[in-house]
Amino acid sequence: MNNFTKVSVAQDARTELHDKLSLTGAEISVNNLPAGAGVPFVHSHKKNEEIYIILSGKGKAVIDDETVELNAGDFMRIAPSAKDSSLQGTILQSVLYVFRLRKTLLKDTQQMML
Amino acid sequence: MNNFTKVSVAQDARTELHDKLSLTGAEISVNNLPAGAGVPFVHSHKKNEEIYIILSGKGKAVIDDETVELNAGDFMRIAPSAKDSSLQGTILQSVLYVFRLRKTLLKDTQQMML
Repeated sequence: MNNFTKVSVAQDARTELHDKLSLTGAEISVNNLPAGAGVPFVHSHKKNEEIYIILSGKGKAVIDDETVELNAGDFMRIAPSAKDSSLQGTILQSVLYVFRLRKTLLKDTQQMML
Repeated sequence: MNNFTKVSVAQDARTELHDKLSLTGAEISVNNLPAGAGVPFVHSHKKNEEIYIILSGKGKAVIDDETVELNAGDFMRIAPSAKDSSLQGTILQSVLYVFRLRKTLLKDTQQMML
């Protein structure tokens, strides 16, 4: 059995890597938002921190009612107590979410839809 | 105090984000290897998993004496017990390391130089 796992990620709308890479310390997904699209998903994590990596394009996020401009090359951490909502992609082509698993994912997530 | 932190990462040889983003669940660094360069750093982690994200370019890694080809769009997990050594960049422009912190980084890392 190899001590490593490798996958190549295509340009799909969303690719989740937890099972594909047998991750134990993080959840990772690669996301592509077409121009004008948004993710109106208001949620917060009690213990997990989220890290967004903007691979290409630009867009904005609304976090605790504050609008944050996002551009390629940006790395953003969101604290566990924050509510981060509605990624808005102008040409936001790739966003990576990384967050830590301390307990189960579902138990650690508080969410409400807009 | 904001519940988020954002930085823009330039094309430096290596950018470490732990302090810049006040990370608690991961170590992240963004790395650029010029053509032909290598990182002959043989090490292993007892508890942390490492995740490499190839942002652009191509190269190879040697893990437990096995050579793995790396291309843009690849995501690779290395298990805690593996020794991963010597990233070799042909045109490997950006590699991201993510690994989990359970204890302190130094205590968790076993390393030897080639």
